[in-house]
Amino acid sequence: MAGNTFGKLYRVTTFGESHGKAVGAIIDGCPSGIELTENDIQIYLNRRRPNSSELSTPRTEKDKVEILSGVFEGKTLGTPICAMVRNEDIGTSEYGVLKNIYRPGHADYTYEKKYGIRDYRSGGRSSGRETVGRVIGGAVAAKVLKERNIIVSARGNYDLSRLSNENGDIDFENINDSIGGIVECKVKGAPAGLGEPVFDKLDAELAKACMSIGAIKGVEIGVGFDVTNMTGSENNDEMAVGEKFLSNNAGGILGGISNGNDIIIRVAVKPTPTIAKKQKTIDVNGNETEVELKGRNDVCIVDRVVVVVESMVAMTILDYYLQNLKF
Amino acid sequence: MAGNTFGKLYRVTTFGESHGKAVGAIIDGCPSGIELTENDIQIYLNRRRPNSSELSTPRTEKDKVEILSGVFEGKTLGTPICAMVRNEDIGTSEYGVLKNIYRPGHADYTYEKKYGIRDYRSGGRSSGRETVGRVIGGAVAAKVLKERNIIVSARGNYDLSRLSNENGDIDFENINDSIGGIVECKVKGAPAGLGEPVFDKLDAELAKACMSIGAIKGVEIGVGFDVTNMTGSENNDEMAVGEKFLSNNAGGILGGISNGNDIIIRVAVKPTPTIAKKQKTIDVNGNETEVELKGRNDVCIVDRVVVVVESMVAMTILDYYLQNLKF
Amino acid sequence: MAGNTFGKLYRVTTFGESHGKAVGAIIDGCPSGIELTENDIQIYLNRRRPNSSELSTPRTEKDKVEILSGVFEGKTLGTPICAMVRNEDIGTSEYGVLKNIYRPGHADYTYEKKYGIRDYRSGGRSSGRETVGRVIGGAVAAKVLKERNIIVSARGNYDLSRLSNENGDIDFENINDSIGGIVECKVKGAPAGLGEPVFDKLDAELAKACMSIGAIKGVEIGVGFDVTNMTGSENNDEMAVGEKFLSNNAGGILGGISNGNDIIIRVAVKPTPTIAKKQKTIDVNGNETEVELKGRNDVCIVDRVVVVVESMVAMTILDYYLQNLKF
Amino acid sequence: MAGNTFGKLYRVTTFGESHGKAVGAIIDGCPSGIELTENDIQIYLNRRRPNSSELSTPRTEKDKVEILSGVFEGKTLGTPICAMVRNEDIGTSEYGVLKNIYRPGHADYTYEKKYGIRDYRSGGRSSGRETVGRVIGGAVAAKVLKERNIIVSARGNYDLSRLSNENGDIDFENINDSIGGIVECKVKGAPAGLGEPVFDKLDAELAKACMSIGAIKGVEIGVGFDVTNMTGSENNDEMAVGEKFLSNNAGGILGGISNGNDIIIRVAVKPTPTIAKKQKTIDVNGNETEVELKGRNDVCIVDRVVVVVESMVAMTILDYYLQNLKF
Repeated sequence: MAGNTFGKLYRVTTFGESHGKAVGAIIDGCPSGIELTENDIQIYLNRRRPNSSELSTPRTEKDKVEILSGVFEGKTLGTPICAMVRNEDIGTSEYGVLKNIYRPGHADYTYEKKYGIRDYRSGGRSSGRETVGRVIGGAVAAKVLKERNIIVSARGNYDLSRLSNENGDIDFENINDSIGGIVECKVKGAPAGLGEPVFDKLDAELAKACMSIGAIKGVEIGVGFDVTNMTGSENNDEMAVGEKFLSNNAGGILGGISNGNDIIIRVAVKPTPTIAKKQKTIDVNGNETEVELKGRNDVCIVDRVVVVVESMVAMTILDYYLQNLKF
Repeated sequence: MAGNTFGKLYRVTTFGESHGKAVGAIIDGCPSGIELTENDIQIYLNRRRPNSSELSTPRTEKDKVEILSGVFEGKTLGTPICAMVRNEDIGTSEYGVLKNIYRPGHADYTYEKKYGIRDYRSGGRSSGRETVGRVIGGAVAAKVLKERNIIVSARGNYDLSRLSNENGDIDFENINDSIGGIVECKVKGAPAGLGEPVFDKLDAELAKACMSIGAIKGVEIGVGFDVTNMTGSENNDEMAVGEKFLSNNAGGILGGISNGNDIIIRVAVKPTPTIAKKQKTIDVNGNETEVELKGRNDVCIVDRVVVVVESMVAMTILDYYLQNLKF
Repeated sequence: MAGNTFGKLYRVTTFGESHGKAVGAIIDGCPSGIELTENDIQIYLNRRRPNSSELSTPRTEKDKVEILSGVFEGKTLGTPICAMVRNEDIGTSEYGVLKNIYRPGHADYTYEKKYGIRDYRSGGRSSGRETVGRVIGGAVAAKVLKERNIIVSARGNYDLSRLSNENGDIDFENINDSIGGIVECKVKGAPAGLGEPVFDKLDAELAKACMSIGAIKGVEIGVGFDVTNMTGSENNDEMAVGEKFLSNNAGGILGGISNGNDIIIRVAVKPTPTIAKKQKTIDVNGNETEVELKGRNDVCIVDRVVVVVESMVAMTILDYYLQNLKF
Repeated sequence: MAGNTFGKLYRVTTFGESHGKAVGAIIDGCPSGIELTENDIQIYLNRRRPNSSELSTPRTEKDKVEILSGVFEGKTLGTPICAMVRNEDIGTSEYGVLKNIYRPGHADYTYEKKYGIRDYRSGGRSSGRETVGRVIGGAVAAKVLKERNIIVSARGNYDLSRLSNENGDIDFENINDSIGGIVECKVKGAPAGLGEPVFDKLDAELAKACMSIGAIKGVEIGVGFDVTNMTGSENNDEMAVGEKFLSNNAGGILGGISNGNDIIIRVAVKPTPTIAKKQKTIDVNGNETEVELKGRNDVCIVDRVVVVVESMVAMTILDYYLQNLKF
């Protein structure tokens, strides 16, 4: 129990179920004296929202953030920053069917097994809506990092062609399946020295940070899994005058500590499990049944995951920056 | 600072430099009343040692473990178990050359940047020898898990052909480069319910556990990165009567919680950076130089990493087992 | 930084400044399936409020709690419970004078030194209003403990006679000074075995829990400081058949572990530093000045501290109960 | 479980039973580049040893410390420092009697209840010998603090007269009872700003640090319990030009944060429970029996506790110093 806090010195604790009253976070350990407005967070939250593209769910909440504490006269106090978003789109009638079945690829079954109870409305705590709290934590971290000229940015990559029909067209109205993709995140400007061997290495914590996002099934640093196809001499990053590295296969991390290069993380995003196709499953009584999750779902969530990855990485980098302050 | 402890309830803190007096660990939170002998640990340590194969370094320490506390009349007391191995092979004359240069692919440069001082003898704390402490923690965890019929086992996979000459032969005496590979780890018998959403998900912590091992550059769960080539309907594991899953693409984890299936983790091991080939680097004064690391080094450490991955996974699973005890 | 979380498995993170938008808490690690309503918390919050007695400040907020997450259909989900109280009485005009001075006995000076910024409105985060979050955490802990028949109760003790005039009367309208007192807390029904030696002993954590309350300057367990006047034979609690102790000088804790007896904690509450008497101090520019804090202040906060002590003790006992679940 | 680590950034994990092979500690998070020798620790350990005075047990181990890791060429590496002391005086024949009874005032009963097993030889982990690890941690902390001109020192206070016969003489050979006393600890040179509200206040952590020592039953800061006899105007420390406080009733801490004054902690030490007087108790089968603990025991351990209190306070202050480094 009690796994809803991330970080050691910059600590973000999130709360909220998809269809409860609100979702949000408390940020503890944010440095004091940093200028911060609700808009700084709102910009990040807007990037997380389902957008107008054909790929996203039509849940249309404004996700307006409210800061409840920790900011005074426009600056952080050094005290906990609580910020939240009220859930609006919480009509529950449509969720009755979910009460009694376990959706394939979702956490319905495991939450039931673990807690003996679950909020079945759209997955409750296991919903992607939980990431609102992460993005709040990440937006603030990014603002703080900017003061030290450290910039975290990510971008998504996916291939829609699998969803096209024989003519190569995609009929977004009638897609009944989903696809995944890759998000690559880059940190520019991080100084050498971040990371706490041997267990809290920077890459270890980045892996945890990213793998804790609902849909992520793989994480790699630098060349990552390609390292298995390289020899030591191909993979080692040689050095030159000016403490310069001649390549960046390591993704900016050596021995768990940043080396001053760009930090590179890549994650695998699974296709969202909510699909219209008929699937076999069981109900809560253990009987076999089938389920089709109609309605317009996300076809590909990669674009929405981008800001969540950025957020987790920003939180991690800031946490390690604070851990690396010198005696 | 202070990153040398792993775990929340089963906590392993390791210590030791490659050429210091000793390496070892304190295990805090081991359940009481478990039968435990030095031999239980020794068996694991022996698997970690350089073996007689042509692929390993000839460092030939016996790595004899001594338990200093926490065990009484053959059983664990519930108090901290300290166990250690004295370093024997610590002749340092040969390490003089390392004092003034940063080896490519090693942590020499980053340790210097972070701490302003480093034990240059074979990498000091950043050496693979640090894993002795991990294996101590893992051996004890595995013994405890066995009481609940949970078994962790891993195996390595690598391709030596890249090192062969035109005739397809490998001349082990004269290899001057190294290769990496894959370690796959499987947990059998873990009950559904392990994992602590939303940040301390089981897969998140497993990713951290594995990525914290020196040579690891990527981690994936279940089908991992292949998920990017699958649709939702292909990837979702359907369920059938008996709470059975019809496939295991998820690698035994849904929403960060184990689902009762085998848990599957795969990691990418980089080629050991210590190679005989000449490489460009800089010395501690910033001047360009070249380095050749002669002597018989590990050609491939994958076989030795296997027990380290098993150890980290066993520690993680036990920790989450303890976190999941019911009120 | 980042000191706003209490507990290891039952974790309470609080937020909020006295005159910010809201105060509250996230509870992470509450067992699932426990019946919980807003009223369970409200009852505790009402005990914390300034009451109608002559001893309290007339701040008259209703302190109505709202649960934002973690409870579904009347039961806890095992997910984070966020609950908060909106601040109502936040007219700030009267606080202008506090902007530029450091009140004696308050944290104005130390917050300025630590953070370089402070919310000067009634002490901001250092105000007693911060205890709303603690009481939320404590009310829920008490509800959970009741399921195991563990009851935490406290009572206050103070001597008003120091404030009386020569006739022995107290003129509450014109008191310009304040007094402190003692709160004694008792835990009934706690099983033997709670406590985690050697640093996280039960008495150690109880001491921290209580000393973290704003006005507390001393903590003792069992006979406490009186132990210095006793011999070993007087102080040792002898045992008799039925695993019964013949006395309880130890206050229910031996070697940092509960022994099944009532657990007894006593704390010293300082007189509230906000007084109408003129006092010397300095302003933010370092110049000497004087301050009189008129208006009707708390004369004695002991009665209001009682529920806060109960809350901290309940949180601690529940946390250790969870840590003591058996493998 | 898992309560053997103290601190957040300067983390000390101790191990060892009284009559096991060794006792010691791993220090994680010690700043790098600090000069450190075994002698720095030995000096502290010598102060902890039973001395030649008539008040102490004749256990005569040299307690010679060995540093196993974390120090290279006379300086700390920033990696974990493991240091230990081998137990020498571990003849166990005399401890047979303790196997089957619970000594009054000791943790024999509670360890049995908690762990279902105990090392009965002189209390095992619950013995005062466990403090060797604390003193190792404290000695190193004190060395580091000295670099910032912060000095921690304590002294003991006790009254032997209770043990004298009608002539006012004390017959040390035949004392069969014990007494306790007070240890007062002062920290000089600590800057304003140490402490992490609201739960990890400096005084809260100091209370925990001290109360975690075996024999301590009460902790107070500044005037402590005397605060209950003072009015607000008597207790408040007024301020004057130069950011000077005109008194130090607060013991150097306001709102949980150091104010630059001397920090003052006072603890109550109970009379050691090991006495020669006959006492009622039960055996492990629940039957009533009596016990006399002959042999020359400590009559008063206050003098030996002094360095342990100093150690815990030094560890706490250093930990908070590191937490207070500025972004």
